[in-house]
Amino acid sequence: MSNILDAARRMKLDRTTAAKRAIFLAAAAYGVKTLYPIVCRQFAKRKECRKTDRGSKGGENGSTVIVKTETDALTYKTSPGVNAEFFKQILELIKILFPKLVSKELGLLSLHSVALISRTFLSIYVAGLDGKIVKTIVEKEPRSFIIQLMKWLLIAIPATFVNSAIRYLECKLALAFRTRLVDHAYTTYFTDQTYYKVSNMDGRLTNPDQSLTEDVMMFSQSVAHLYSNLTKPILDVMLTSYTLIQTARSRGANASGPTLLAGLVVFCTAKVLRACSPKFGKLVAEEAHRKGHLRYVHSRIIANAEEIAFYRGHKVEMRQLQKCYRALAKQMNLILSKRLWYIMIEQFLMKYVWSGCGLVMVAVPIITATGFADCETADGQTQVLVSERTEAFTTARNLLASGADAIERIMSSYKEVTELAGYTARVHNMFLVFGEVQRGVYKRSSVSTTGTAEKKNVARPEMHIEGPLEIKGRVIDVDNGIVCNSVPIITPNGDIVVSSLNFKVEEGMHLLITGPNGCGKSSLFRILSGLWPVYGGLLHKPSPQHMFYIPQRPYMSIGTLRDQVIYPDSLEDMHNKGYRDKDLEVILDIVNLNQIVTREGGWDAEMDWKDVLSGGEKQRMGMARMFYNRPKYALLDECTSAVSIDVEGKIFQAAKDAGISLLSITHRPSL
Amino acid sequence: MSNILDAARRMKLDRTTAAKRAIFLAAAAYGVKTLYPIVCRQFAKRKECRKTDRGSKGGENGSTVIVKTETDALTYKTSPGVNAEFFKQILELIKILFPKLVSKELGLLSLHSVALISRTFLSIYVAGLDGKIVKTIVEKEPRSFIIQLMKWLLIAIPATFVNSAIRYLECKLALAFRTRLVDHAYTTYFTDQTYYKVSNMDGRLTNPDQSLTEDVMMFSQSVAHLYSNLTKPILDVMLTSYTLIQTARSRGANASGPTLLAGLVVFCTAKVLRACSPKFGKLVAEEAHRKGHLRYVHSRIIANAEEIAFYRGHKVEMRQLQKCYRALAKQMNLILSKRLWYIMIEQFLMKYVWSGCGLVMVAVPIITATGFADCETADGQTQVLVSERTEAFTTARNLLASGADAIERIMSSYKEVTELAGYTARVHNMFLVFGEVQRGVYKRSSVSTTGTAEKKNVARPEMHIEGPLEIKGRVIDVDNGIVCNSVPIITPNGDIVVSSLNFKVEEGMHLLITGPNGCGKSSLFRILSGLWPVYGGLLHKPSPQHMFYIPQRPYMSIGTLRDQVIYPDSLEDMHNKGYRDKDLEVILDIVNLNQIVTREGGWDAEMDWKDVLSGGEKQRMGMARMFYNRPKYALLDECTSAVSIDVEGKIFQAAKDAGISLLSITHRPSL
Repeated sequence: MSNILDAARRMKLDRTTAAKRAIFLAAAAYGVKTLYPIVCRQFAKRKECRKTDRGSKGGENGSTVIVKTETDALTYKTSPGVNAEFFKQILELIKILFPKLVSKELGLLSLHSVALISRTFLSIYVAGLDGKIVKTIVEKEPRSFIIQLMKWLLIAIPATFVNSAIRYLECKLALAFRTRLVDHAYTTYFTDQTYYKVSNMDGRLTNPDQSLTEDVMMFSQSVAHLYSNLTKPILDVMLTSYTLIQTARSRGANASGPTLLAGLVVFCTAKVLRACSPKFGKLVAEEAHRKGHLRYVHSRIIANAEEIAFYRGHKVEMRQLQKCYRALAKQMNLILSKRLWYIMIEQFLMKYVWSGCGLVMVAVPIITATGFADCETADGQTQVLVSERTEAFTTARNLLASGADAIERIMSSYKEVTELAGYTARVHNMFLVFGEVQRGVYKRSSVSTTGTAEKKNVARPEMHIEGPLEIKGRVIDVDNGIVCNSVPIITPNGDIVVSSLNFKVEEGMHLLITGPNGCGKSSLFRILSGLWPVYGGLLHKPSPQHMFYIPQRPYMSIGTLRDQVIYPDSLEDMHNKGYRDKDLEVILDIVNLNQIVTREGGWDAEMDWKDVLSGGEKQRMGMARMFYNRPKYALLDECTSAVSIDVEGKIFQAAKDAGISLLSITHRPSL
Repeated sequence: MSNILDAARRMKLDRTTAAKRAIFLAAAAYGVKTLYPIVCRQFAKRKECRKTDRGSKGGENGSTVIVKTETDALTYKTSPGVNAEFFKQILELIKILFPKLVSKELGLLSLHSVALISRTFLSIYVAGLDGKIVKTIVEKEPRSFIIQLMKWLLIAIPATFVNSAIRYLECKLALAFRTRLVDHAYTTYFTDQTYYKVSNMDGRLTNPDQSLTEDVMMFSQSVAHLYSNLTKPILDVMLTSYTLIQTARSRGANASGPTLLAGLVVFCTAKVLRACSPKFGKLVAEEAHRKGHLRYVHSRIIANAEEIAFYRGHKVEMRQLQKCYRALAKQMNLILSKRLWYIMIEQFLMKYVWSGCGLVMVAVPIITATGFADCETADGQTQVLVSERTEAFTTARNLLASGADAIERIMSSYKEVTELAGYTARVHNMFLVFGEVQRGVYKRSSVSTTGTAEKKNVARPEMHIEGPLEIKGRVIDVDNGIVCNSVPIITPNGDIVVSSLNFKVEEGMHLLITGPNGCGKSSLFRILSGLWPVYGGLLHKPSPQHMFYIPQRPYMSIGTLRDQVIYPDSLEDMHNKGYRDKDLEVILDIVNLNQIVTREGGWDAEMDWKDVLSGGEKQRMGMARMFYNRPKYALLDECTSAVSIDVEGKIFQAAKDAGISLLSITHRPSL
């Protein structure tokens, strides 16, 4: 019998653990989140190296250093705080989220709010029903027990629906926010070649794809989640305090004492926890940094596997890896031991001290209450009173537990707010950079010059400009001819490849451009097509629709075989231009590609063309696009190097016959 | 007053939501996890393309297709199931985790188990104390209330400690497992150039760094977590059932009925839930796939930004991106709406139906109990009995809630087991591949030949071998001279670059190797240094310590300036060899690098040498290493292309004077 008595707190303890574990997991997830961008950045760093190498020969080392500086800064700076800046940023983003007053988003938000409020009231009703059921059991009334139980099961249907709907609406809201942001972002991203400029001209966004997918998603989820996560506990605390005070008052007990006590306890707990909390943010950031470093060392070894294998440097590299792993494990151990004590204190205060105070608060009114008569003599009366007292106790305790839970949630959601601040800053920064890049404002953190030095196989630039460049050149769209009047070729890093270029191409003229690597051939094309700004001089050129550029690396789009030939047009554009599939076949005939239509299964075949077509086929496809577009001027950048010489000659002749002026870069003397 | 009664279930509902949210978050996290490898793989795919291009010219397209096939297979196959294979694999891994019976890991595991058991008993004790406190309040005994409260606060100290220690030990255990696995993995990874072979000769592990960091971490965490997550609820269910049955029996009520009912309800719930559960695994996998695809399209645009910008293809690409985003949003909406109904059913069954049954189970013994006398007349006696009945009810209900919670946990941990199966398969596969690669067993999924076609700038291989290659060649370590006797040069993809090579280099001879790209110059060096197997013929070569290879791409290690010169030796090795810093200065003098010691701040300066040194300086550093190592044969692969001709001549002369036979690949006619 005494064994039976030993049971109550148990469930509570279990729940506590579950809740804490959830928090812990969330913290772990947060660690991952903190880590993830860093790892990505590390990857980005390496990616960037290669890309810049390709994009702007002559400035590889410089650019690498830039990215690195930024990486380190970001690793240590961590997320921005909750300050005026944050509110300004989030306000700007909210304007994007709710472009007009009556929108789908606002509808979802209202529905969500209604669901949240109705859940609170449903909970109170269900709790009341529960109390009544307890009463029927204790008072041994099987009949009313069954009636109440039925009622309870019936109310469960709307209750569970509302519960499930809240989560549904929260996710829907997050998705709606995300769609809104993504639509806005895509529009900006694809205007004025921002997608090119962001990654190649500007150094601030290292991973636009990360910003456009993960960051936007995390921001919208965070906003939607925080809304429902803050609304509910605030409502709960208010209702609970009100009910508790009312309850105590109705019994004639003094309510202000316990309420004050509760407030004091919560306040003290918060103070004590803040005082003895180790700097987990810093600790976790350091862990993430070491994790990222381990990952970096790993991928470094993979990237340089051949060199290491040749040097037989495995021992050195293994020692390096082990050192990194030990450092990470040490940091993890440090965090674990700090957390051991902190969680113990937190649990002691939040669970036991709070519960203890709750017991005192509940016990004092019951013990000192005047509403309960004690000296009743009638048997039934006494029983009813005792069971009523029990109920009152249970109710008050549950209310308190609910209140404590709500306060705990509000306290813990501070972390979520700081997290939101981080996402807000990232998303806001993305839009800021998009906007600035569109207006031609490029920023690259200033670089120490140690990195920019002689480069393998590449002519060293004669001059280098430090600091921001002013765009002083003028571009005039003309009908005919390209005239370049003392235009300098300057890389995005400020290296001057050519200080002043003068040339003139008239319609019908053909130009062959040749020269060693790094002398600015491809850069000239970049300037002609508007990718790089004209920093000085005067450039007369035809409007973009009259110029067609075929880049060095063949590019295949996602889509059907037809989409490859008519790129960058869509099927609709093609029909508008009056082309039919038969015309496309004629074009493929010119470039000797007619066989692939049947080989690959017709015009509507969708494949990974990058892999399906060979190098030469891809280059010939590029030439086919030129015949489809029929521009006045075609700029060809070594785009027939893998095509046999006779086919190449045939294609060039056909282009000349079609009246296309060819400006081509080549290393082949045959042209 | 009636308002006061409405309260009980509320807390429970709140907790439910909290718990569900935690599960939901976990599910979301799982989604991320599922996504993460896919995204990584997408990245890997692109990385692989470039790497293979470098590692084995002549087979780029083929290799790309391989990786792709594997990607798709992995995307759709998802995690392996819980079957005999899984148990076999985990047993093998456990052997690594516990190499001997008495180990640190076993100690941690025992401590952890003790903590888990003591928590269960502590919970029961605390629950009992709680019950007693309730009794003192209801019976209005302020004095014993205070005593019990003090006791309760005192017991809280060990209780919270044990609680916190359980998490601490779980994490410690995970870390210990991870360390064990990482140590084992590193040892294998760095034996016999496995790190090179895994990424360059074998196609099975696309991201060894991912396997070595994330997968190993997730596996150890999963094992440690599952252990504590399964032990506790099983213990709980056993104890709860026992206590409940005992309780019912001690009251003389029939215990078998309710117990059977409980079992039946749990069974039915599981059946119903399984029947109406949508295929979330498949749905989430599809979502992750679409998410990965969106990410892929994004990074594709960034990678090809220049080409797209030149073509002005932004409209097509934007439409593509929007299509991908819509597809993702559609899938997310589908999952949300399916989840809305499923969670509703789940909550209804698990929370309300289970609680309802619990109430019935608790009510029936109390109502039908014979242990409680009902018709007592003495006032005190009745009161005590009612309060006791209340206590019995509370106790039983708490026990039931605890039991239900435990069952819920066991049911939900099935997902964790399947997750563990996934991690186990990945980690096991990693070790398997390491082992096979070490024994020279390379596997690349067979490729459709459509991908292998003519390649830009690269001589097309004359022949290609399909299917696995047999290593028939013999390598004999001799003291002097390199003799190559009809050795074929075959790339890891099976392309035959040279079908039979014959040459002989005697000591003191120098060899100049020249030829167009792709003719097998670097591949010959790979064969000589043992990176690629000798598939046929006979190769006599000196032992590895007499040969020193300087690769085409200069490689700088992490460490001090001294470490760069003595690479791959460590400081200790250097001292053992009798070198002092002064000797190193002499070496740097030979390669005209003496100024960098003072420029960079002495021998112990630690920098990112890759960025700090210029291209020519890095190449000269490579030559310095040769003078440090003083091999009999030095294999130089275009490693002085950025060094001025007079310095180059001086270095080569010094090497000849030092008695080093030079085998050098070069494009410069001056040599």
